[in-house]
Amino acid sequence: MVAVFAKCKVVGGKEKIFVDLAHELAEKSRAESANVSYDILSEIDKDNGEFFFLEKWKDKAGLDEHMATDHFKNIIAEVQKIIEGELEIHVYEAI
Amino acid sequence: MVAVFAKCKVVGGKEKIFVDLAHELAEKSRAESANVSYDILSEIDKDNGEFFFLEKWKDKAGLDEHMATDHFKNIIAEVQKIIEGELEIHVYEAI
Repeated sequence: MVAVFAKCKVVGGKEKIFVDLAHELAEKSRAESANVSYDILSEIDKDNGEFFFLEKWKDKAGLDEHMATDHFKNIIAEVQKIIEGELEIHVYEAI
Repeated sequence: MVAVFAKCKVVGGKEKIFVDLAHELAEKSRAESANVSYDILSEIDKDNGEFFFLEKWKDKAGLDEHMATDHFKNIIAEVQKIIEGELEIHVYEAI
């Protein structure tokens, strides 16, 4: 299993647009055969515009296939228009 | 659903002890009724002594119960003897 934990800070006022985009990406990603789980998170008791993608994939090949899909590329392109800086992405493997 | 993402840096030479403790905690935690998933991770392609706990719980009450268990308290106490500094713990909620 590989896991992705990605963080972004959404521009003030764009939170609703972000959440809708993130939920659309989550739904389409969960339908991929290599997906284990896909969650959109915020840190508990914080309201600072930071949101997180928590994803689990069967293996690195499945994650690579996901990042080549149209839904990933198109929705992330939209997300990048409404966040400050870049998505901060880390990839992990289960040990 | 609430998620925990916790990071620690293991003292050099203590990695095997850490991994055994972490796997024991994972196995006992997965047996709790409020647990959704419990994974021990390292960042892919890095070998820097950093390890991560990625946990999902049905709700905050289930996480609170987990943190009151003997296996959590006893194993974390052992982990704290072989890490640099403190466990860096963040708690998230699905949105």
